[in-house]
Amino acid sequence: MDASGNPVEHRTSAPKRRRLAEVAKALEATILRGDPDMELTDFATLGSAGPTDISFVANQKALALAEKSRAGAFAAPEPMDLPGRPVLRVPEIWEAVCRLVGIFRPAPPVASGIDPTARIGEGVDLGPGAALGPNAVVGNGAAIGRATVIGAGSTIGDGARIGHSCLIYPGVHILHNVQIGDRVIIHSGAVIGSDGFKFELVGGRPKKIPQAGTVIIEDDVEIGANCTIDRAFLDATRIGAGAKLDNLVHIAHNVQIGRGCMLAGQVGIAGSTVLGDGCILAGQVGVRDNIRIGNGVQFGAKAGVKDDAPDGAVLLGIPARPIAEFLRVQAALRRTPDLLKRVRQLEKRLEQLEGGGQKA
Amino acid sequence: MDASGNPVEHRTSAPKRRRLAEVAKALEATILRGDPDMELTDFATLGSAGPTDISFVANQKALALAEKSRAGAFAAPEPMDLPGRPVLRVPEIWEAVCRLVGIFRPAPPVASGIDPTARIGEGVDLGPGAALGPNAVVGNGAAIGRATVIGAGSTIGDGARIGHSCLIYPGVHILHNVQIGDRVIIHSGAVIGSDGFKFELVGGRPKKIPQAGTVIIEDDVEIGANCTIDRAFLDATRIGAGAKLDNLVHIAHNVQIGRGCMLAGQVGIAGSTVLGDGCILAGQVGVRDNIRIGNGVQFGAKAGVKDDAPDGAVLLGIPARPIAEFLRVQAALRRTPDLLKRVRQLEKRLEQLEGGGQKA
Amino acid sequence: MDASGNPVEHRTSAPKRRRLAEVAKALEATILRGDPDMELTDFATLGSAGPTDISFVANQKALALAEKSRAGAFAAPEPMDLPGRPVLRVPEIWEAVCRLVGIFRPAPPVASGIDPTARIGEGVDLGPGAALGPNAVVGNGAAIGRATVIGAGSTIGDGARIGHSCLIYPGVHILHNVQIGDRVIIHSGAVIGSDGFKFELVGGRPKKIPQAGTVIIEDDVEIGANCTIDRAFLDATRIGAGAKLDNLVHIAHNVQIGRGCMLAGQVGIAGSTVLGDGCILAGQVGVRDNIRIGNGVQFGAKAGVKDDAPDGAVLLGIPARPIAEFLRVQAALRRTPDLLKRVRQLEKRLEQLEGGGQKA
Repeated sequence: MDASGNPVEHRTSAPKRRRLAEVAKALEATILRGDPDMELTDFATLGSAGPTDISFVANQKALALAEKSRAGAFAAPEPMDLPGRPVLRVPEIWEAVCRLVGIFRPAPPVASGIDPTARIGEGVDLGPGAALGPNAVVGNGAAIGRATVIGAGSTIGDGARIGHSCLIYPGVHILHNVQIGDRVIIHSGAVIGSDGFKFELVGGRPKKIPQAGTVIIEDDVEIGANCTIDRAFLDATRIGAGAKLDNLVHIAHNVQIGRGCMLAGQVGIAGSTVLGDGCILAGQVGVRDNIRIGNGVQFGAKAGVKDDAPDGAVLLGIPARPIAEFLRVQAALRRTPDLLKRVRQLEKRLEQLEGGGQKA
Repeated sequence: MDASGNPVEHRTSAPKRRRLAEVAKALEATILRGDPDMELTDFATLGSAGPTDISFVANQKALALAEKSRAGAFAAPEPMDLPGRPVLRVPEIWEAVCRLVGIFRPAPPVASGIDPTARIGEGVDLGPGAALGPNAVVGNGAAIGRATVIGAGSTIGDGARIGHSCLIYPGVHILHNVQIGDRVIIHSGAVIGSDGFKFELVGGRPKKIPQAGTVIIEDDVEIGANCTIDRAFLDATRIGAGAKLDNLVHIAHNVQIGRGCMLAGQVGIAGSTVLGDGCILAGQVGVRDNIRIGNGVQFGAKAGVKDDAPDGAVLLGIPARPIAEFLRVQAALRRTPDLLKRVRQLEKRLEQLEGGGQKA
Repeated sequence: MDASGNPVEHRTSAPKRRRLAEVAKALEATILRGDPDMELTDFATLGSAGPTDISFVANQKALALAEKSRAGAFAAPEPMDLPGRPVLRVPEIWEAVCRLVGIFRPAPPVASGIDPTARIGEGVDLGPGAALGPNAVVGNGAAIGRATVIGAGSTIGDGARIGHSCLIYPGVHILHNVQIGDRVIIHSGAVIGSDGFKFELVGGRPKKIPQAGTVIIEDDVEIGANCTIDRAFLDATRIGAGAKLDNLVHIAHNVQIGRGCMLAGQVGIAGSTVLGDGCILAGQVGVRDNIRIGNGVQFGAKAGVKDDAPDGAVLLGIPARPIAEFLRVQAALRRTPDLLKRVRQLEKRLEQLEGGGQKA
């Protein structure tokens, strides 16, 4: 059952059958409790799991839910335990979760081999094991690294270079000369290398300034569905190694996103702004152009950022302010109607006093 | 003419010719006034209609505009009338509007038949009358219900199941194992089943947690252009029956949207949040993760929602507050500059009084 | 080097070689200083340029940066000069920039000729020099003007009409009967002509009202990546001549955008709203439905617009207010915590006075 209490059917294919001992081995786990021959057929959340499913306990908070779970077995790290229930003691719970998905819920390949309908331009450098889905288009002089997979209908522009072991889902558009590192994941509908938004007045009318730079996406970046990342004017818009962008994020031209930044859904960063490493931007944050954000800066949801921010700042609100100031203003704001009443009363009392003084 | 006063050319094809009596019959209407043989050629708004067009009067407010309209005839429900002008009395105005569109402005089919360039994987279950446009791709083991239409260049992942009578516009990407009900409409560029945004720290570095659940879209849902709906981690992200999503809406993994919810453009819902039935979210609303919104809750445009909300709540602002509180704070806010002045005056007057006291 | 100090590789192809005199001629410039035979290989920003690159100085502010630049030559308008360095005196700097891009950084064509995999429907009117990329689809009765280029995988619906010299990037979806003027640029993933979001209660349940109008995009418009522009109910959604939309902008049905408007990333305009000419909307602005915005109105980033606005208004905030009022409220807001303290003190002092008065 899902969070609404409805039954869900979300198995990806025919159920897999694995003995508990096999699973333990694959997870480099020890069987803390349970029959090694017990048969497991799926990996599921605590709330959804049935008696032939294995689930997992990531932390203390999950333990209460686990006790009510109908799961047949549990993966759990030290010191979590479920007395009386089959438990695999795993060295690292999220590593175990990844392996359990691999065993019970493997995703079908996004593409395999070179589909006969894929179009490959002239002088394309295709690495060994690279796959192109139906109707994928690779432009002249492009390079696709080994084991990189390009989904159906995706288009790779002339001269674009994509590293190895990348996963480009269906319907992604990577424009000319864009450079993408290794192990990069790009979800459907993302557009990388569209023109930056630059117009200059010439003779009183806005003239489009061609955008002749590029986008560089470093290693291990993940880019969400329907994101847009504009190419720089002459240099490169850059997404630093390990950065993760959620869906519908807009990155304008010349922006520099630091290593390991996390940008939640619908964030927008305006032109030439620089984000340091390890910044975290919650959903729908907007950052203005040409500012400089330090390392490890965090912005709360919907923040409107108009000024530079120092390393480690935590900012909230529109315009974004340091969290302490934001909370102080918010608290004062809630008391403003009351404040109005108190000032009105003060005025009356003072009037009386002044009147009294005059009378005296 | 359109709202700017410009002439518009928006007829979809050669004009249709229909006698007023024919139209009346198709609408199950009676001719309240007008020549049954009068020829009509198009259906148009009150402002745009010319003497051979039929228009409509939905309510009292439209009556004034109708009187100035050049339309040759009007569809109108009880008790609306336009003395001296041809009027069809219709039982239900919006039902009549739908039929008038069908008569005068039928949309061309999104696809018809199985285009020879469509790619159909192994073991695909294709219902009778299903249509696949040019370059549509249907993955292995997928199922497409009867009379469902898939537009050009759309991709359907392995194992995805789409019900009957659905309309999938060109360039939609539905990923593996996604489940879609009957009579669902999905507009171009929407992505259903992209990975949820889930990273966990392993050895101090964020590790991608594979998203191995799915998305369930129930019957009669409509999803706007370039929306993104992420698959759940292990369970299912769910869009309840009859829910309508406008363009560029982002639904994160594990979210549950209740039946009949209306989400306006650019709304974003973060992970695992649950919306009850019949909620209405105005444009650019953001809802944080892991909260629970009751039934029939309404959020004003741009609201930032960070807390659970009870059934029937009406909330506005960032952070979202009950409407009464929001309006009180807004009113107080506008008076804050004045308040500042009044406090400054109070301080002066008090000082004088205190000074006076000392002198005395 | 880019703004982060990293070396960038963003040349689009083999370096071009041009003598300074050749470049001067192409720019209609005079050589203010420098060897006419000096060889130039690229056009680059002041910060990135090396000794064989030409850069440019647009204004006084750039002069300081130019002095530190390693560029081999500079394009500069009156009165900018760099004593001792090769300078081309150009009549108009942004015109010169466009030409320098054309010389050193020409973009590869988005498509050339009619690709054999392109699908052309019945009765299509294809102008001379029009190009269709791989898997482009043009519906029945559509018209594509001369020299218009349609990128790979883009789909043009039945009866759509596109003018001449347009550039439609890969993966754009233009639906049936949409009308597009001349010299229009549309970036990847944009959807033009999706259904407006219109539901009316019939028998207590929301009924979809078919959207049978169209979208008219006038000459010289540019539309960013993954924008969505909905078709009108019966009339036309209109984007006025010369308007520019950045990425992920949402335009609802029946909206009228005036000539030369600039809409930054992630802006959303709700149904039937009318914007005058020359409006500027900063990032993430939201404008409600059925309002009328005058000519030359400017909205600051993230503004939430709920009321009509007169010509020339400058509005900020949620809800949007005139800038003077907005700034006054913001200033007062920041002082609100302090105000609270001052009122508390006033109350104490007044109590003492009153108490003193009583004692007296």
